[in-house]
Amino acid sequence: MKKKIAVIGASGYSGEELVRLLLHHPHAELVAVTSRQNAGQTLAQVFPKFASHPKSKTLRFTAPKTALLAKQADVVFLALPHGVAAEYAVSLLEAGCVVIDLSADFRLKSAEIYKEFYAHDHPAPELLKKAVYGLPEIYREQIKKTLLVASPGCYPTSILLPTIPLLKAGLVKSTGIIADSLSGVSGAGRKAEADYLFCECNESVRPYGVPKHRHLSEIEEQLSLAADSNVTIQFTPHLIPVNRGILTTLYFAPEKHFSNTTEMDALNGKISACYARNYGKEPFVRLLEGKALPDTKNVAGTNVIEIAWRLDPRTGRLVVMSAEDNLVKGASGQAVQSMNILCGFPETAGLV
Amino acid sequence: MKKKIAVIGASGYSGEELVRLLLHHPHAELVAVTSRQNAGQTLAQVFPKFASHPKSKTLRFTAPKTALLAKQADVVFLALPHGVAAEYAVSLLEAGCVVIDLSADFRLKSAEIYKEFYAHDHPAPELLKKAVYGLPEIYREQIKKTLLVASPGCYPTSILLPTIPLLKAGLVKSTGIIADSLSGVSGAGRKAEADYLFCECNESVRPYGVPKHRHLSEIEEQLSLAADSNVTIQFTPHLIPVNRGILTTLYFAPEKHFSNTTEMDALNGKISACYARNYGKEPFVRLLEGKALPDTKNVAGTNVIEIAWRLDPRTGRLVVMSAEDNLVKGASGQAVQSMNILCGFPETAGLV
Amino acid sequence: MKKKIAVIGASGYSGEELVRLLLHHPHAELVAVTSRQNAGQTLAQVFPKFASHPKSKTLRFTAPKTALLAKQADVVFLALPHGVAAEYAVSLLEAGCVVIDLSADFRLKSAEIYKEFYAHDHPAPELLKKAVYGLPEIYREQIKKTLLVASPGCYPTSILLPTIPLLKAGLVKSTGIIADSLSGVSGAGRKAEADYLFCECNESVRPYGVPKHRHLSEIEEQLSLAADSNVTIQFTPHLIPVNRGILTTLYFAPEKHFSNTTEMDALNGKISACYARNYGKEPFVRLLEGKALPDTKNVAGTNVIEIAWRLDPRTGRLVVMSAEDNLVKGASGQAVQSMNILCGFPETAGLV
Amino acid sequence: MKKKIAVIGASGYSGEELVRLLLHHPHAELVAVTSRQNAGQTLAQVFPKFASHPKSKTLRFTAPKTALLAKQADVVFLALPHGVAAEYAVSLLEAGCVVIDLSADFRLKSAEIYKEFYAHDHPAPELLKKAVYGLPEIYREQIKKTLLVASPGCYPTSILLPTIPLLKAGLVKSTGIIADSLSGVSGAGRKAEADYLFCECNESVRPYGVPKHRHLSEIEEQLSLAADSNVTIQFTPHLIPVNRGILTTLYFAPEKHFSNTTEMDALNGKISACYARNYGKEPFVRLLEGKALPDTKNVAGTNVIEIAWRLDPRTGRLVVMSAEDNLVKGASGQAVQSMNILCGFPETAGLV
Repeated sequence: MKKKIAVIGASGYSGEELVRLLLHHPHAELVAVTSRQNAGQTLAQVFPKFASHPKSKTLRFTAPKTALLAKQADVVFLALPHGVAAEYAVSLLEAGCVVIDLSADFRLKSAEIYKEFYAHDHPAPELLKKAVYGLPEIYREQIKKTLLVASPGCYPTSILLPTIPLLKAGLVKSTGIIADSLSGVSGAGRKAEADYLFCECNESVRPYGVPKHRHLSEIEEQLSLAADSNVTIQFTPHLIPVNRGILTTLYFAPEKHFSNTTEMDALNGKISACYARNYGKEPFVRLLEGKALPDTKNVAGTNVIEIAWRLDPRTGRLVVMSAEDNLVKGASGQAVQSMNILCGFPETAGLV
Repeated sequence: MKKKIAVIGASGYSGEELVRLLLHHPHAELVAVTSRQNAGQTLAQVFPKFASHPKSKTLRFTAPKTALLAKQADVVFLALPHGVAAEYAVSLLEAGCVVIDLSADFRLKSAEIYKEFYAHDHPAPELLKKAVYGLPEIYREQIKKTLLVASPGCYPTSILLPTIPLLKAGLVKSTGIIADSLSGVSGAGRKAEADYLFCECNESVRPYGVPKHRHLSEIEEQLSLAADSNVTIQFTPHLIPVNRGILTTLYFAPEKHFSNTTEMDALNGKISACYARNYGKEPFVRLLEGKALPDTKNVAGTNVIEIAWRLDPRTGRLVVMSAEDNLVKGASGQAVQSMNILCGFPETAGLV
Repeated sequence: MKKKIAVIGASGYSGEELVRLLLHHPHAELVAVTSRQNAGQTLAQVFPKFASHPKSKTLRFTAPKTALLAKQADVVFLALPHGVAAEYAVSLLEAGCVVIDLSADFRLKSAEIYKEFYAHDHPAPELLKKAVYGLPEIYREQIKKTLLVASPGCYPTSILLPTIPLLKAGLVKSTGIIADSLSGVSGAGRKAEADYLFCECNESVRPYGVPKHRHLSEIEEQLSLAADSNVTIQFTPHLIPVNRGILTTLYFAPEKHFSNTTEMDALNGKISACYARNYGKEPFVRLLEGKALPDTKNVAGTNVIEIAWRLDPRTGRLVVMSAEDNLVKGASGQAVQSMNILCGFPETAGLV
Repeated sequence: MKKKIAVIGASGYSGEELVRLLLHHPHAELVAVTSRQNAGQTLAQVFPKFASHPKSKTLRFTAPKTALLAKQADVVFLALPHGVAAEYAVSLLEAGCVVIDLSADFRLKSAEIYKEFYAHDHPAPELLKKAVYGLPEIYREQIKKTLLVASPGCYPTSILLPTIPLLKAGLVKSTGIIADSLSGVSGAGRKAEADYLFCECNESVRPYGVPKHRHLSEIEEQLSLAADSNVTIQFTPHLIPVNRGILTTLYFAPEKHFSNTTEMDALNGKISACYARNYGKEPFVRLLEGKALPDTKNVAGTNVIEIAWRLDPRTGRLVVMSAEDNLVKGASGQAVQSMNILCGFPETAGLV
């Protein structure tokens, strides 16, 4: 029998993407979508592109009422701003729902760090230890047993998946890591702000949020767990005129210095083995071979993250590059992947 | 009296941009444009956007013949592929022309490094020591006295201008420098290759040429001169779906460690003073203040490079960001700036 | 049991889109893909975005050899240039394959008109009467019984589907029809021509092929059949900087003049009824209601065509607008839809 | 001596473009820029791209106070919403300023039609007969003598310039005219509305405002004057993902039917002569020859409108196409052109 699913905050880009994925999911039935501004309208009215789906004419947006939603749904996705999400999570968990939260509210273990980065007290600190960070390739077993998934941010996913195996294997130093990321404009959400107007983004490339972006908190917490030591990284996000996609370039210092071709080949072999061991069987991690490099157009609309790397004999550094769709593997697709795991569905259900 | 100018290879993007600038230059008269494929056609036919200029109906593309061009022109711009440019330069210099070369042929001092990066013998190694690297903010005095300007590449300009003053002042370490660059598609030239088709670049962000791009040769030579020691950097170019613009993010280790706000403020003051001293009166370097960060849309079509920087107290690093139009400050505008200096015109003539 | 499918010419945009659709088709098995230039490479190498599909590592491009393909495949899609496609069709039909041709070779009934528009003799005129024009909403019954489907062009689909029902019902005059169409750049194919480079298309909007585009031949033949009289239309294609999508605006003179609100409402009712009767149950035609107007972003990646219309009381005209994805409903999706019908699969199989 | 100029509403796209043009105008000195939201900030702060201009650091945005502005400025440009502009115009004219209004407030002769299209009473109907419609190619002599220029809209300019000469010469019928227009997103203004976010416009092509766009009022009034009879046209605007540019395709019925090549050549000659007579010496109208067709990228950033036409022997129609930059010839450039005429400057001053 299909699980009944609600999406709270379904009118933003992540919410819309959740709707897209859930409408075609073989084991899920979308029973409720909420949005204050669109309450009363059908899915087809708000999102004409879903109008060919039979549900689109009958499923109507409602205002978010947790008591009602908890009766309707087994699993509730929260696609809400941080701070707001936590309140819904508390009520829904109490009412017996599984909660998959796409906000930042439960991604950190520490309420103090939350406050440092989000500038307000954590609304439900007691839940922080119950939440599982929803990066399936790292926390698959934990996701199976939780009722509260904190689905990772788009930048963190693009950085953590390439980096965690290297740190765990001790192949790179945990210090001096740099992540330079390029994000499509949907990452800013469907906010009617002048900065994200077409004419302000088209023919424009720009960094922003330098040097302390909020996502650093979850990135560094996860990297520190992987390295088993305190990790601080340099992170520079840039806004790029594409709808979807994050391209991240990572710079590492290998633990083991290489000074000739033989040593470089040996290190290359270790990195290759490390990635193969960690991701060789992962359905959504694509390790590129040969001369191929990541390209956001190869992952747009999919739950795949592409990873490639190069050792540079001139500098002694390791450069790792990843590409993902910020709305899919970087948000809604990954959230559905966690739902699949948590609910015992095939992990790729609805995602290929 | 106006100088007579020829552009060899005027049908590519840099050549077209030279034509645009020279048609409106107060002290220059464009007398010849060459292009094998467009020989016989008027400027207006090849570039409809110039059709409102009176010269566009009479000036016709010719095949490039140096003897004839040398009679017609005082100054010749070469917008040709590397290897080809050098041959023209030899003939034109012998015939008494000033040559401003936009190719890579005379940017390096060493013919060996040229061969390493460009995979063929240098066609005119004896000219390498006569050529001046046409970065006016650094080599203004030398440009005044040369007959052969080697105008810098687009990536090098975006990296060298922010970096050289810091190295010269000893404010940053000359080791471990990383340059992460994002370039518009015009940087690839007007080549009919599938990789640069609209549908291959639109909705795509991708690195390429990792880890050893050809421009590294001139970048490292210039940085080594500035640091007075051998400099090797990490450089990652990316292709971004905009027509024009390069955004470069640079990562440095400050020479002097800072561990508290006072030290950071002091270092910030030194960097600020360093840039002000070097560029405060430069007409084409814009040092950003306050919260402003570079944005390619603010420099598109202009000869300006924007520079901003941030010290990161969390990592101890200095992050410097620059934005330029790859076809103007990164190519044709800078070449015209060199011409202005060399010919004794006001340096901003035709460029504002 | 699954039908075995080959795609000849699988390296262009239509071919790639066929591959995308067929890889996930529940009743089809892609057994061969051909491309002279990519022969020997796997699907994953040529199209990294398909690399997550299990077949992508084993299925290799071959050079197109009809004898071999005929042994391997039950159904062969031809994604080839006109003139070339016909030759393959002849051999494959003789060898017992079903052929679905995406070129223009079998779309016309008249070899003379073919020659007028395509400037060479028809390579296989005897097949013209056997071919069925693959517009399922109009020729569903005929498609069921043919072995040779001539799948319509992208512009024709966007014009014919909105127009044919109006002509058949006698609601609009068959004279004076104007079709103004805006096409994404993928419509030009994956050809390495300077006109379709990113920098030539981005920030550019332009008409082309005015006034006699080749697609007029099939458009007018089909409209003439619908009107039962000779129809000549005005057609202006434009190139627009999007990857995918055609937006067509059609101008009609209603048969019945309306001079007041009552008459206009009555005519609106008839048009609405006409479209509902023809398309109300069509899975891939979306009739827009209320204030909604077509938008290519609502159909991109899908086999849906959106249609809306407005009567203009000021001019007495009927304006009809349609939006489709030129590569899906305008090419490969529609071809798969025809295959589904011809093979007795559910018509929407692999298309939703 | 330079004229002193103020721009009221300088923070929108038209206002910004006025600032760009006026900062480099040889006979104008920009003395005041107003914007409620940016009051207190310098030009350089609001528009970093102007930061290289010496005035940008000293000229500060103020709130708009007409008494003060009237003391400072000789000429005032109004880049304000309709309804608001008229109030400023009244005060400024009384205070002795020349007013060039880019809003719709004074473009119509009839206050009734204004009310029909703009849904409120005209705020200053007594000024309607004093205002001159600022289309220099048509009303040059009248502009010389007025104190109030109503600068035309972007769509109207793209339609009127190609059409008026044909109507005046009686070459086309004044009935049945269709204008199909494609506009860049800057046409919507710098409004923070979700419809104009990057992700809503990129990869999207869509009609809007069908069938009764407000600009029809001024288009039809001007066409009626040219035809000396009541003209009603069909007009369909579309939104296209470019920053700048309008491409308009016009469909006409020639007055004189042509049924063979000789007649067509004769008519072609008449159209050619008509355009040459009207626009042959116009600095900002480019009549395309040979196979060339308009392309917005050829006029972006310039005050030029490109015009081409084709007679279609198959349909008997005349198709005329135009391209302009909606912010320059379609707005601010044209307004500066009117200022040049009105003030006795060379008409092209500051515009080439």
